[in-house]
Amino acid sequence: MDTMEMMKSMSMGSMPMDMGAMQECIQSLNACSMAATMCAGADMGEGESMAKCTAMCSNMADMADACMRMMMRPLGMDMGVMTAMLTACMTMGRACAAECRMHADMAEHCRYCAMACEDMVAKCEAMMAGMQA
Amino acid sequence: MDTMEMMKSMSMGSMPMDMGAMQECIQSLNACSMAATMCAGADMGEGESMAKCTAMCSNMADMADACMRMMMRPLGMDMGVMTAMLTACMTMGRACAAECRMHADMAEHCRYCAMACEDMVAKCEAMMAGMQA
Amino acid sequence: MDTMEMMKSMSMGSMPMDMGAMQECIQSLNACSMAATMCAGADMGEGESMAKCTAMCSNMADMADACMRMMMRPLGMDMGVMTAMLTACMTMGRACAAECRMHADMAEHCRYCAMACEDMVAKCEAMMAGMQA
Amino acid sequence: MDTMEMMKSMSMGSMPMDMGAMQECIQSLNACSMAATMCAGADMGEGESMAKCTAMCSNMADMADACMRMMMRPLGMDMGVMTAMLTACMTMGRACAAECRMHADMAEHCRYCAMACEDMVAKCEAMMAGMQA
Repeated sequence: MDTMEMMKSMSMGSMPMDMGAMQECIQSLNACSMAATMCAGADMGEGESMAKCTAMCSNMADMADACMRMMMRPLGMDMGVMTAMLTACMTMGRACAAECRMHADMAEHCRYCAMACEDMVAKCEAMMAGMQA
Repeated sequence: MDTMEMMKSMSMGSMPMDMGAMQECIQSLNACSMAATMCAGADMGEGESMAKCTAMCSNMADMADACMRMMMRPLGMDMGVMTAMLTACMTMGRACAAECRMHADMAEHCRYCAMACEDMVAKCEAMMAGMQA
Repeated sequence: MDTMEMMKSMSMGSMPMDMGAMQECIQSLNACSMAATMCAGADMGEGESMAKCTAMCSNMADMADACMRMMMRPLGMDMGVMTAMLTACMTMGRACAAECRMHADMAEHCRYCAMACEDMVAKCEAMMAGMQA
Repeated sequence: MDTMEMMKSMSMGSMPMDMGAMQECIQSLNACSMAATMCAGADMGEGESMAKCTAMCSNMADMADACMRMMMRPLGMDMGVMTAMLTACMTMGRACAAECRMHADMAEHCRYCAMACEDMVAKCEAMMAGMQA
């Protein structure tokens, strides 16, 4: 099973969409969701200084999952909604990365999660650029 | 068990937030998520003319769930992220209501879902107004 | 918008299912998911003694959401799958209630969450009884 | 960012768990969730003969997500709950694979999804074997 192969068979009809950019965005949202879920899961045992990080990473994972699923339902695609959801995801990704960066020296999961958030923000930006073309 | 009672005990600390407006928003997002999940579930058996409705309602449910959960994690609250997510939810709610309205005469689940989306948009607007105050 | 009204219009075709019991189960799963999400969200700021509670309530919310959504998709209904998922939800509900009960004197959100879990377990049991009839 | 690297840093404390088997299970659940979401998303445009497949794949994706997230929260780990959830996931995976297999000649997304479900069932079996050791 190769998720990338499967995505290549997805059709977006006549949507003005760069399919390659969207597939990279889906993969990055997926990695970000998993990193944020694991980061929150580890944070839970690390005391009150990690409270904000736990909550932000939990929010990040839920938003990334919702955004990724939208991209996998071509028939529900709406450019205005997609733009608004990508914007929300990028805003969350920047806030979550900033929080995780503060703990990156002490906690490897925070370092990974910050990197995953930053990569996701970059991939969402690239996808939005492809939509406006 | 009364969810409203439980919400009243939630604290948002020093967040510039109208708690009553947020609680009404959570309840409306919840009703919207359930209506959209049921609408999509019913659409699935109703043929290709309902394909777009199935996909949009599935997106609506995922976004409403993610938005609602953010409101229930006070420690992760970030005004910029919340504003962007509310905007995305309202954009989705308007698009989903417009789609469901087209089938409202034939399908009761679409009529309910359109109403639930419209109520959710109104409650998100009220909550955003309370945030900017 | 009345979610109960909408549920009453759902059809399960020829499934050997007590629809009233399923609707009560959906409502209780929904209340349980919200209570567990709020309990986890509050736990996050309450230090390491609440770490297990945060994680268990997060698991409870995710499982309750998945179980509830299955009930809202009549065309995907499979008796074997539904029985296994109800069993998993009840097992989780008992474990989560036991954890929350330990903090119920100190934290109101834990007291609410334990009650919501226990109600959900009872409603799942009633629904399973209706399936075996 | 490498999700596998991040998972290797997860600790399950004293849980009687084969970590390698759990990591392979997480990866397979993730691939299964994505394949099922894409399969349901494609089904939506393919008419009433795909209605059951749409609903089952939507259920599969929600259950796989919930199961995967549980594995990423070590502090909430409970052997009884994990066994029940793995059982539910395997039951769903077999039912979803059987449905998708029926359309595998006509629809590539169904062929992929059936393979992803079957792989996930095998990985859950391996993880359960490691838990009972």
